[in-house]
Amino acid sequence: MNIIEIIEKKRDRKELSEEEIQYWIDGLCDGSIPDYQSTALLMAIYLNGMNEKETFYLTKAMTYSGEMLDFSSIDGIKVDKHSSGGVGDKTSIALMPLLATCGVKVAKMSGGALGFMGGTVDKLSSIPGMNVFLPKEKLIEQVKEIGIAMVGQTGNLCPADKKIYALRDVTGTVNSLPLIVSSIMSKKLACGDDVIMLDVKYGDGSAMKELDDARELAKAMISVGKQYGKNIGACLTSMSQPLGNAVGNALEVREAIDTLHGKGPADFTDLVLRSGAELLERSGLYTYEDAMNKLKENIANGSAAALLKTMIEHQGGDGRVVDDTSLLPQARFVTEIKAEKSGYVTDLKSQMIGELSMALGAGRRSAEDEIDYAVGIVLNKKVNDPVREGDVLAYIHHDSPLSEEWLEKYSQVTEISENPTEPVPIIAEVL
Amino acid sequence: MNIIEIIEKKRDRKELSEEEIQYWIDGLCDGSIPDYQSTALLMAIYLNGMNEKETFYLTKAMTYSGEMLDFSSIDGIKVDKHSSGGVGDKTSIALMPLLATCGVKVAKMSGGALGFMGGTVDKLSSIPGMNVFLPKEKLIEQVKEIGIAMVGQTGNLCPADKKIYALRDVTGTVNSLPLIVSSIMSKKLACGDDVIMLDVKYGDGSAMKELDDARELAKAMISVGKQYGKNIGACLTSMSQPLGNAVGNALEVREAIDTLHGKGPADFTDLVLRSGAELLERSGLYTYEDAMNKLKENIANGSAAALLKTMIEHQGGDGRVVDDTSLLPQARFVTEIKAEKSGYVTDLKSQMIGELSMALGAGRRSAEDEIDYAVGIVLNKKVNDPVREGDVLAYIHHDSPLSEEWLEKYSQVTEISENPTEPVPIIAEVL
Repeated sequence: MNIIEIIEKKRDRKELSEEEIQYWIDGLCDGSIPDYQSTALLMAIYLNGMNEKETFYLTKAMTYSGEMLDFSSIDGIKVDKHSSGGVGDKTSIALMPLLATCGVKVAKMSGGALGFMGGTVDKLSSIPGMNVFLPKEKLIEQVKEIGIAMVGQTGNLCPADKKIYALRDVTGTVNSLPLIVSSIMSKKLACGDDVIMLDVKYGDGSAMKELDDARELAKAMISVGKQYGKNIGACLTSMSQPLGNAVGNALEVREAIDTLHGKGPADFTDLVLRSGAELLERSGLYTYEDAMNKLKENIANGSAAALLKTMIEHQGGDGRVVDDTSLLPQARFVTEIKAEKSGYVTDLKSQMIGELSMALGAGRRSAEDEIDYAVGIVLNKKVNDPVREGDVLAYIHHDSPLSEEWLEKYSQVTEISENPTEPVPIIAEVL
Repeated sequence: MNIIEIIEKKRDRKELSEEEIQYWIDGLCDGSIPDYQSTALLMAIYLNGMNEKETFYLTKAMTYSGEMLDFSSIDGIKVDKHSSGGVGDKTSIALMPLLATCGVKVAKMSGGALGFMGGTVDKLSSIPGMNVFLPKEKLIEQVKEIGIAMVGQTGNLCPADKKIYALRDVTGTVNSLPLIVSSIMSKKLACGDDVIMLDVKYGDGSAMKELDDARELAKAMISVGKQYGKNIGACLTSMSQPLGNAVGNALEVREAIDTLHGKGPADFTDLVLRSGAELLERSGLYTYEDAMNKLKENIANGSAAALLKTMIEHQGGDGRVVDDTSLLPQARFVTEIKAEKSGYVTDLKSQMIGELSMALGAGRRSAEDEIDYAVGIVLNKKVNDPVREGDVLAYIHHDSPLSEEWLEKYSQVTEISENPTEPVPIIAEVL
């Protein structure tokens, strides 16, 4: 086999075989295929695409490029979820402990995140003392003991993905369906979970601007998962406004905790319950209705919040935050943003809110940036809420003074109109 | 400016500006843009193409990436030709001295060649003592003195082309019209010639299999040349059979010399005279008819052969070869290939002849290979020649015994049929 012939095949829109894709990934990882050949192939893949079979083979080759996490020693059904990322998405922090109280096992490994979206690992890291980097053995041990662990990715998981992602990032080949699918799914498949629920966002604050694109991505990921033999489904969820009210690491943890205490925002609570019920139904342990009842019950009886506390403590964190969220990092200043007119909120620009939150210090622009866990934005009015002039639209949590420029930009975030707009359901479709 | 944005533009089929193309070529040459970004861009160019303007800007940026050859100190009209390469193409060796006897100046710099086609520089190097690597000053001095010099490319000409070619070669991006055009034309434009005549081959033994493709390539090269202000034309010529009879370095030099003595093969002589007349007409010194007469006259009166001899001697070579071609390197063996049946030759597979000649040692597979100047193939029968069983079809000049495999392959070269075939004109079109 010969990498030039492989590049030429993809250039000429021919289908690559499993052996050819494996040959490329092997050479990419051991350095025998130089980066300048891989990037030519990546551009050919970007422009000519890959079919379902090729995407699966690529994902599989990437999956096996590094360490595999074998969860077979953990009894019960192991479940995982993946979100394509959006503004204010703290779903895992509330959902995973809640699921773990319902008889499934959660060994959750989350990727890091760049940009305004922030990752679950960053959010959990805002809890004082919390250790999100457990070695594999510790992770498995903790799941066996308490049913849940939530950690960041280990260095050895899918090295091919790390390498390919770095090359895509500098060659204009990030936004390619087969490359996105293989990047996400290789990391999911490297973990030995039985049931995977995908949350693919669409709208302003997410990578996929249109529902159709989100559906296409979800279908491609489901196809790969099924070819691998996974029990996998997806929710297509709206990112037309931020999820819940809080955007920013500690603020989102607080909101996740509030939600497990039954005091979460309506849209976020709804998403946690419905995507949780979908996942539990797929696990075969419940009907959808029974699952929904069980999830609500374990919020009401405090067991989900209690398990989150137990998990935090097992991972070295200060579990008291679950009972007293004021123990989370607090910003020095909280500034109110007030409505300049009355009416109904008809738009909240998610992407802009994400960028403004990052500008406060809540996200990373580059891998070296330090995150300020305390800062962020808490929305007080969401889409279709009525407002009067002077009402608080949002609370800005910040550690340095807000610039004129920042405030000017924030003034463009909220659209207020005379009449309410057509409501957008949080879950558009379930696949 | 930012190379990722430039890659993305070409990826998205947008037109690159002159500044963007210049930025890429600058970064490619100074190393600030890594190869893995250039190859992604090359693949995007391969798949999405470049329009005439972009191709011109790319050519121009490549032209100016290195040394420029300023011929302004040479009086008169400086002319150049370029052949896209074919089997048995020794045109420059006969044509350039002939042109130089007609009042134009020839400072010819030829590129090296890989593969079975061999380059003019390789062919000239078969002349004992001949120095084809003159420094720029010597080149210009010799043209001033005798009107002609024929040399290989200097190290400093178009370094961007060298770099891009090396990357194209290993990333499946060789066969891209704008990249072929910019590679050829940048080297032509770096030399200060006034009139350029292109010879674009089509058919079995050349890069362009179809006349339409050759025409497209010629038009693209002419467009670039004209945008640069050059007086430029092209002949589209057939490579359906080898040009002339001889294939192989010293054998081709012998045939070129024979042609200047008025004893060349008909097709080759025809091409030399007609492309020469086209070029002289474009120089403005002659009408086509006058040029043709002058060219024929300077063969008949011996002045063209005499000038070739003078040039060889000026470049340190043994000029006596012009009077006695047996002084050229001779192969140890000459094997006759005989016809196994009678009829008419209806096909001579150029590509296969080229490959078989290379297998004898006449060409390079890699840059390090040594060429055996003496070996090659001399056809005794060309397309539409009548043959009788037992007639000699070709003389194989070789230095080591011919293998069974080689002979078996050669037996597929010549097609003999009962009736002659439709003759293919040597020049299909002039642009």
